[in-house]
Amino acid sequence: MEVIADPIAMQRRAEAARRWGDRIALVPTMGFLHEGHLTLMREGRARASMLVASIFVNPTQFGPNEDLAHYPRDLSGDLAKLREVPVDVVFTPDREAIYTPGAQTWVEVTELTRGLCGAHRPGHFRGVTTIVAKLFNLVKPHFAIFGEKDFQQLRAIQRMVIDLNFDLEIVPMPIVREKDGLAMSSRNAYLSPDERRDALALSRALFAARDHYVAGMRDAETLRKTALKVIAETPKVELEYLEAVDADTLEWPARADRPILLAVAARVGTTRLIDNIVLGVRRP
Amino acid sequence: MEVIADPIAMQRRAEAARRWGDRIALVPTMGFLHEGHLTLMREGRARASMLVASIFVNPTQFGPNEDLAHYPRDLSGDLAKLREVPVDVVFTPDREAIYTPGAQTWVEVTELTRGLCGAHRPGHFRGVTTIVAKLFNLVKPHFAIFGEKDFQQLRAIQRMVIDLNFDLEIVPMPIVREKDGLAMSSRNAYLSPDERRDALALSRALFAARDHYVAGMRDAETLRKTALKVIAETPKVELEYLEAVDADTLEWPARADRPILLAVAARVGTTRLIDNIVLGVRRP
Repeated sequence: MEVIADPIAMQRRAEAARRWGDRIALVPTMGFLHEGHLTLMREGRARASMLVASIFVNPTQFGPNEDLAHYPRDLSGDLAKLREVPVDVVFTPDREAIYTPGAQTWVEVTELTRGLCGAHRPGHFRGVTTIVAKLFNLVKPHFAIFGEKDFQQLRAIQRMVIDLNFDLEIVPMPIVREKDGLAMSSRNAYLSPDERRDALALSRALFAARDHYVAGMRDAETLRKTALKVIAETPKVELEYLEAVDADTLEWPARADRPILLAVAARVGTTRLIDNIVLGVRRP
Repeated sequence: MEVIADPIAMQRRAEAARRWGDRIALVPTMGFLHEGHLTLMREGRARASMLVASIFVNPTQFGPNEDLAHYPRDLSGDLAKLREVPVDVVFTPDREAIYTPGAQTWVEVTELTRGLCGAHRPGHFRGVTTIVAKLFNLVKPHFAIFGEKDFQQLRAIQRMVIDLNFDLEIVPMPIVREKDGLAMSSRNAYLSPDERRDALALSRALFAARDHYVAGMRDAETLRKTALKVIAETPKVELEYLEAVDADTLEWPARADRPILLAVAARVGTTRLIDNIVLGVRRP
């Protein structure tokens, strides 16, 4: 497994691989890898002859009052996990090599990033789409694998790929959950045992709505209220939003004849958690 | 010479060429080609084994009160000129194929596009950097050739290439002028014979400042005033701006020990014209 820190070296390696005929898959991460990430890696492994994982805690997608400074890190643990997949190249650039002096270019997806997390984290998605565009140009992948845990991020990146004509395929992968339902997240490491138990309210709320949907309920607002009621039962969960929107446009209201995204963000203690579920048959 | 209208076909052609080992040069244009464009084409021809010219009147870089609807067009004349270079591929996409329904992604270079034309054409440079990013992903060039006539555009694109890690080299080319000094522009076609004569005030003003610089004057504001005085002698030239800024950062004030960009925009009749000159030794 190669570990490459220099962006220019990464780009040269990718260009040489493409010329050679390799099919490149990229899994972009911020490190502190869990089973969710590794599921993405294995999908990339199956699709490509050269699998690249990037580890970069991207400062431009954190707000000034967010957890950039103490975002969890474990590079040696990450590398051990990636070696097992196995990954071919780990791209671990420094912040200074990625954002050079005078950097002032932003890639912005407008409508899709307005609501949900976009409304609560100003500048977050602009940071995400900008770093992902940069990674695409540095790693030159044929496939890029993203988890549905960050559903709005996934939709914004899919839109960016179409709008900027990136020559690659975005591969979305389902959320990976702990046995008790908690969506896997690097930020779960912040939770105390009590908070870990409270955090289950998020997935429990989404599953209650799903059960209601499976039982025939199609009204988005009713489904949302079913989930809200479950969240309300755990007072230590401080809700940021819980919305039912169209799973493609992320717009409200969701129509009964189309897939509904039920998305939730909440604080448990000081930790911000997100989760979501799609109700209904999805477009490919 | 191939003429390709379909973006997907263009991208496949470019990818195949790269795999084959071709070196691709791109000259993006809005058509109605003149000798300035053809100089760019010849530079691309000299550098690459596959020369691509694009012709696309990009709607997103025109303001609502600008000349999009009657921008001059002459596709058959353009193709004849390109065949002479010779160009290998002409990319002539439709507007609908470039901006698909739901398009909402913008590439924006912030500081460099604030002053000069950016201050007078809101949204213009955002439209330029977005279409150029798209063309880079569709044509996959190793080189892209741009004229210094649109100096601020050149600087914004150079910055975008660095910031988004595009794997290509921007090749700037000097302004091409008519024998009497008028900078070549497709928009010169709008000018009546009288306006054509009045328009010479722009280059005359820049040359007067250059003569003053060559004679030893290094104060940017004095050089600006030298040029302003010449413009004022032609009352039919309605000045939009005439500025002396740092040729790299485009910021005011220009320092005496660094290259100065003297840039002018003015209306002659209803036609908006721009011109510029760099005073001092330039960075490569």
